[in-house]
Amino acid sequence: MLRCVGSLRKMASFSGQKLEHVVKQLECFAPTSLAEKWDNVGLLIEPTKHKLVQRILLTNDLTEPVMGEALEKNVDLIISYHPPIFRPLTRITQSNWKERVVASCLLNSIALYSPHTAWDKVLGGVNDWLAKAVDIKGIKPLVPEVGAEPGTGSGRLVDTNMTISQLVQTLQEHIQQCVHVAYAVEHHPKSQVSTVGICAGSGGSLLRGVQADVMITGEMSHHELLDFNHNGTTVLLCNHSNSERGYLKEFKVLLSERLEGACELFISEKDKDPLQTLIRGDAQGAQSIQQ
Amino acid sequence: MLRCVGSLRKMASFSGQKLEHVVKQLECFAPTSLAEKWDNVGLLIEPTKHKLVQRILLTNDLTEPVMGEALEKNVDLIISYHPPIFRPLTRITQSNWKERVVASCLLNSIALYSPHTAWDKVLGGVNDWLAKAVDIKGIKPLVPEVGAEPGTGSGRLVDTNMTISQLVQTLQEHIQQCVHVAYAVEHHPKSQVSTVGICAGSGGSLLRGVQADVMITGEMSHHELLDFNHNGTTVLLCNHSNSERGYLKEFKVLLSERLEGACELFISEKDKDPLQTLIRGDAQGAQSIQQ
Amino acid sequence: MLRCVGSLRKMASFSGQKLEHVVKQLECFAPTSLAEKWDNVGLLIEPTKHKLVQRILLTNDLTEPVMGEALEKNVDLIISYHPPIFRPLTRITQSNWKERVVASCLLNSIALYSPHTAWDKVLGGVNDWLAKAVDIKGIKPLVPEVGAEPGTGSGRLVDTNMTISQLVQTLQEHIQQCVHVAYAVEHHPKSQVSTVGICAGSGGSLLRGVQADVMITGEMSHHELLDFNHNGTTVLLCNHSNSERGYLKEFKVLLSERLEGACELFISEKDKDPLQTLIRGDAQGAQSIQQ
Amino acid sequence: MLRCVGSLRKMASFSGQKLEHVVKQLECFAPTSLAEKWDNVGLLIEPTKHKLVQRILLTNDLTEPVMGEALEKNVDLIISYHPPIFRPLTRITQSNWKERVVASCLLNSIALYSPHTAWDKVLGGVNDWLAKAVDIKGIKPLVPEVGAEPGTGSGRLVDTNMTISQLVQTLQEHIQQCVHVAYAVEHHPKSQVSTVGICAGSGGSLLRGVQADVMITGEMSHHELLDFNHNGTTVLLCNHSNSERGYLKEFKVLLSERLEGACELFISEKDKDPLQTLIRGDAQGAQSIQQ
Amino acid sequence: MLRCVGSLRKMASFSGQKLEHVVKQLECFAPTSLAEKWDNVGLLIEPTKHKLVQRILLTNDLTEPVMGEALEKNVDLIISYHPPIFRPLTRITQSNWKERVVASCLLNSIALYSPHTAWDKVLGGVNDWLAKAVDIKGIKPLVPEVGAEPGTGSGRLVDTNMTISQLVQTLQEHIQQCVHVAYAVEHHPKSQVSTVGICAGSGGSLLRGVQADVMITGEMSHHELLDFNHNGTTVLLCNHSNSERGYLKEFKVLLSERLEGACELFISEKDKDPLQTLIRGDAQGAQSIQQ
Amino acid sequence: MLRCVGSLRKMASFSGQKLEHVVKQLECFAPTSLAEKWDNVGLLIEPTKHKLVQRILLTNDLTEPVMGEALEKNVDLIISYHPPIFRPLTRITQSNWKERVVASCLLNSIALYSPHTAWDKVLGGVNDWLAKAVDIKGIKPLVPEVGAEPGTGSGRLVDTNMTISQLVQTLQEHIQQCVHVAYAVEHHPKSQVSTVGICAGSGGSLLRGVQADVMITGEMSHHELLDFNHNGTTVLLCNHSNSERGYLKEFKVLLSERLEGACELFISEKDKDPLQTLIRGDAQGAQSIQQ
Repeated sequence: MLRCVGSLRKMASFSGQKLEHVVKQLECFAPTSLAEKWDNVGLLIEPTKHKLVQRILLTNDLTEPVMGEALEKNVDLIISYHPPIFRPLTRITQSNWKERVVASCLLNSIALYSPHTAWDKVLGGVNDWLAKAVDIKGIKPLVPEVGAEPGTGSGRLVDTNMTISQLVQTLQEHIQQCVHVAYAVEHHPKSQVSTVGICAGSGGSLLRGVQADVMITGEMSHHELLDFNHNGTTVLLCNHSNSERGYLKEFKVLLSERLEGACELFISEKDKDPLQTLIRGDAQGAQSIQQ
Repeated sequence: MLRCVGSLRKMASFSGQKLEHVVKQLECFAPTSLAEKWDNVGLLIEPTKHKLVQRILLTNDLTEPVMGEALEKNVDLIISYHPPIFRPLTRITQSNWKERVVASCLLNSIALYSPHTAWDKVLGGVNDWLAKAVDIKGIKPLVPEVGAEPGTGSGRLVDTNMTISQLVQTLQEHIQQCVHVAYAVEHHPKSQVSTVGICAGSGGSLLRGVQADVMITGEMSHHELLDFNHNGTTVLLCNHSNSERGYLKEFKVLLSERLEGACELFISEKDKDPLQTLIRGDAQGAQSIQQ
Repeated sequence: MLRCVGSLRKMASFSGQKLEHVVKQLECFAPTSLAEKWDNVGLLIEPTKHKLVQRILLTNDLTEPVMGEALEKNVDLIISYHPPIFRPLTRITQSNWKERVVASCLLNSIALYSPHTAWDKVLGGVNDWLAKAVDIKGIKPLVPEVGAEPGTGSGRLVDTNMTISQLVQTLQEHIQQCVHVAYAVEHHPKSQVSTVGICAGSGGSLLRGVQADVMITGEMSHHELLDFNHNGTTVLLCNHSNSERGYLKEFKVLLSERLEGACELFISEKDKDPLQTLIRGDAQGAQSIQQ
Repeated sequence: MLRCVGSLRKMASFSGQKLEHVVKQLECFAPTSLAEKWDNVGLLIEPTKHKLVQRILLTNDLTEPVMGEALEKNVDLIISYHPPIFRPLTRITQSNWKERVVASCLLNSIALYSPHTAWDKVLGGVNDWLAKAVDIKGIKPLVPEVGAEPGTGSGRLVDTNMTISQLVQTLQEHIQQCVHVAYAVEHHPKSQVSTVGICAGSGGSLLRGVQADVMITGEMSHHELLDFNHNGTTVLLCNHSNSERGYLKEFKVLLSERLEGACELFISEKDKDPLQTLIRGDAQGAQSIQQ
Repeated sequence: MLRCVGSLRKMASFSGQKLEHVVKQLECFAPTSLAEKWDNVGLLIEPTKHKLVQRILLTNDLTEPVMGEALEKNVDLIISYHPPIFRPLTRITQSNWKERVVASCLLNSIALYSPHTAWDKVLGGVNDWLAKAVDIKGIKPLVPEVGAEPGTGSGRLVDTNMTISQLVQTLQEHIQQCVHVAYAVEHHPKSQVSTVGICAGSGGSLLRGVQADVMITGEMSHHELLDFNHNGTTVLLCNHSNSERGYLKEFKVLLSERLEGACELFISEKDKDPLQTLIRGDAQGAQSIQQ
Repeated sequence: MLRCVGSLRKMASFSGQKLEHVVKQLECFAPTSLAEKWDNVGLLIEPTKHKLVQRILLTNDLTEPVMGEALEKNVDLIISYHPPIFRPLTRITQSNWKERVVASCLLNSIALYSPHTAWDKVLGGVNDWLAKAVDIKGIKPLVPEVGAEPGTGSGRLVDTNMTISQLVQTLQEHIQQCVHVAYAVEHHPKSQVSTVGICAGSGGSLLRGVQADVMITGEMSHHELLDFNHNGTTVLLCNHSNSERGYLKEFKVLLSERLEGACELFISEKDKDPLQTLIRGDAQGAQSIQQ
């Protein structure tokens, strides 16, 4: 009851926009044609009956706690960076969390939009946000997108002039989380860094073969780390979603402007990286080092 | 408004059953393990909130007119012989009829179950129904199912003693529709028929290589027809769904018994084969030869 | 004996042409390079000993009755729209009708030429013939052939202004056969038709995704029909070969001119679609509705 | 003219047999089920009109000179060890020698049977014949055929007690041709031989990994030879067909008995290995070392 | 110089064993036939000249620092859990670290043996070691190895009775490292744990579909973590090699017994997981939380 | 001892070159980018410690006898036309001759370079050398290399005016070996030759479809020979490596100039084709016809 009252009250001051208009603005910012071939992006769930979009929830992952928050906040549209439908669905039942999320959206007439690799490539997108952890002297995409605005493309290569220690510190501040480091065989904390490869998320395959002093990414396998470390490259891991999530704050401002204040925008409070590092001796209290 | 009143009135006399129970009865009759590897059968849509299943609609194809009828009749479960989700879904929007049907089921908390090839193989299923068009002297599956009850399997081979003319007539009466015939090179209406191959739906690949005087199936390609006709086999085509739909009447009785009268069962009035044959001169009035 | 006498008599008035010359004229009209990659077209059987081509039989399908007619008519060349050799041959025996046809051609020194998809694409070919069933206001290929004469390509898209009823009637007159119709969900006989997609033969894959009010083709599967009907498209089916065979009359005139009367041309009297529709009540007499 | 007279004269004394009977005897000796999966064996050409098989030509390869001999000898059946149809045919024209041979068989009503790998595996077949070049102390198949008569299978492994020099000499006598030798790194002409691997034709893949002092086969590639020679194995090459052809003499006797003298059997006089070795200085006269 | 003197001195007291004997003992403990099909295990480098194996280095990963240690320690054999040759080599140059390691082994006549997944599966191997972090009430392989000693197979499933907090603590003690935790959606530190899935290394694909309260593995991707967490499973990550390395201590004892003291065994001092977690504020000093 | 003394003496007069410089000269002559996609060329073994390259051995195949010669001659670099590593290596042991050769190179710090198909294509390479057996009136590549110097490419097509007999004689003189001939069906020793296709090594696939009176190559399979012979082409076979080896003499001069006399170059004395033809009657003495 209270929830309904509350949301009615909040909804009073936002005129709302047609879903088509919001989608158009989203695609105008980062066209889905930018996304990788293997990806599944754009409007993934379109409710049967169109109503005005007055409330929008931004999240990195549409987990069930976040879905609960969406219902709680009575939103009309969820923008989830990662697409909840990735492996195509042969059925929609209650025995699988992704199918439950899809069913819940449709039952509650909540639209769902996922940008994923379109945001990775766009100028001013996720990778440009992650690169801000570095003292940037120069920046360009690792794989420039043919026919797109300069600065668009996969990953980023940043010129800088820092020590590894300094870079770890600025990265920790930028993502507001601890960082995992794998030093190159010849590197130490005071080693000088001139070039940094950037790939939000899981960077192993995109960064392979790139020459840089340091790589910043979300996650990377053990055998990939050993290859980079023997090739003169130190790797900094943020955990997958910690290398992406911070972008939502920037995007919220950007979308609000595009929608001219017609919709209320929320960043999920439930969305967080699944992993936390427990230091030895802390297990009983289960207080992670980040908190 | 009237619809709600009407359905409340009708629902009064049926106690309903849990969805789990209905599904269990369906699988008990024709286990989904019988279905072909490439098929997508069983409970395809399970609503978020479980309610009692009081009203069930049976249909061969879940087209949008049939979906409208389901809403009209306020049913809780649709049993659609053909699975509306066959090619897996990467999104659920309003731009594709199968996605619209899925969204409508979820919005209206209607469950969806598809048996398809499990019904084709089961003893007393679709192919056994279609075989009743023949004066049966003996009957067995074309490909018996290993480890299943005798009589279970793909297709049927029927021994009989009729002329082609007689068989066409009894088939027309059985499906209540006209029939398309492709005579074997050496056959004519009075040719004697000793064996009949049966395959509801699209029989080209299952029936290939089978030796029989006549094949009865729903649809078959031109080049397959020429192969059969040169191999001594006359083919009778019913149109795809006309070779399947009549089974719903039999199944309704069967399911009603299994559910002990707890649910109200309907056979769709909107479900019909998309094709009708227009005889020359009739086009203006668009009266098909079946009507 | 009589046959030989007869054919000697008839052959008297036709000077004949070298096989190379006839093939050159056929390829000049519709180059085999136009054919689809998966197709098998051109001169498929070339007799060991070259003799003058004096008599040519045109057919849609080279069935065994048509092969019998070819021997009866003592022809030197068969032009069969569909290639009798499609799946490559590992042997040539008497246990398979296509191998028997091949063996019979070689034993009797009859050459065999198949144009198939080259005729489908060529300007003035099979699809242009089928399109004449429509009151044409404008016409273009569905997939224009790169580098070929304008108007060449796969399928046709026709602009018109008719009702469905009128179109069914003109189509029936054009092919001289009955027609099967699958109405779009929203369509009825009086619905107005502005655009018509044309694909002789089996049109399901070529026409997929094309926007048109009506599709005219030879055959299409049940599930393809449901997709078109839900997408706003009514489909008219002629039966596979009835959507192609009528072109032979046009082609006979055309080839006769190219050969300057040097050869006698026949259209097969035995060639016909394998299917006929039997209306209910007619089975005993086996009179199809077309006759 | 003379040819016809000649063949009539010769045919007088042989009663002939039905083709079905001859084929049955051939399959009885070496079932086609023995052949490799990738092979194409059995009755490859069956004439349209069956006549009695009175004259049969045996050949290793059905080249055009051998085809000419078949016509000259007026035979009704050719048994060609290698199948003239191996890559499946998409057409039968005069521009390819294998198509010409097929066309010629059909035009002249000559049946064609190829045993190939069925003869390789059968007990008393091609490999057992080739093994007779060795002083056999023991013999068994390299890959015994499961479920077949003991001694049946791919290749042969022979126990013996000879020097390489002696073996070269007996092999040359057996095939009546010169031999090519590739000595193992440690071998010389007087090296003792205890085991010999046998594979008629092209033995590289079958013999790979087999441990033997000497391999006898028809042909083998340079890189395979180096592998064997470094693995302690000397290889003797006969040229492909010289490792097979001599078997026809044995088979002729065997088939004659099976047909009880009803057919006249010929071994081709035109069939020979394409290769001959020219020793230096002989080129002008073009006399090969074998002649 | 000093190094040689040193090693001569140390070597004095160990009689050494033939490489064949050491390899035989290694395979006797964990047969290479146990390894996965895709793996590359066993004796990977065998020096040209055989000398007695007197000194053996055990390592988890054969990195270049570990290779340096091997030269320093003058060992004759390296046993590296992970195979340094995994992707097959097309050349051996100085531009790739794995090729440099291979070249160094061969130049210095050091043999190399890798057990990898054979050790994962063997009873008393890596997974049994990792399982000791749990208070074991019962234990069995996740995928028992057919035909092997009971207890052999892939992964382990352990019955226990602990809280997650307790398990984290015992795991940290066991591996002597910090641990990363991803809580199941419904879990908290005091949640009770009855079953634990174990997979040393990268456990995502082996553990998929296994039902357990907690999984212990080395590394797992973000999207796999979300799937487990929504399926009621908390995941504990050790970092890839920290879930494996501790086993070397156990193995050293075991191998020493098998070799009856003939060889001197070392565990590498340079071998360590590439990753270390830096807590916020520590970056300047680069002191990881483990140290 | 003597060997070391000897090589020290010999080495005295050659200043040597850095390996990088020699490799640069090799790639400058025939860029590895010319090689086929499936090939494995360039610097295949690079020793751990770089020393000056003073002595270089040239060979066609790096067999173990040739490897022994390399050690005997104390060379620093082997240039082997055929790459000893072709199938990628998963291990390097003593049980396989190619692995033994690789291990021996690394143990003895001998570098290994293989040009293979880069030498086949380059202007003035292996095929141009082989073509010199013909009285050349004109010459061009069979498949010209796009973007390379004119005359570069796969195979050669030579215009000439000789009889087959003359060509056999000049070829025998050029390669200093006997030759195997497979005459075209219509050819004889005195047949006139206008065009000759050239492909060193194994020419079957490259030469397929090429129109020429004669093909000269190293080896070709029986079935390929029959195809060429029926297509009007006589084939001359040299044995695989005899069609390549003679080029080393030319290349030695060429490389010596490029290295400006800084290195001593040897052509292997142990390198020879594995095959020799034994004429009948010669086996006891094992004197091949070439000797």
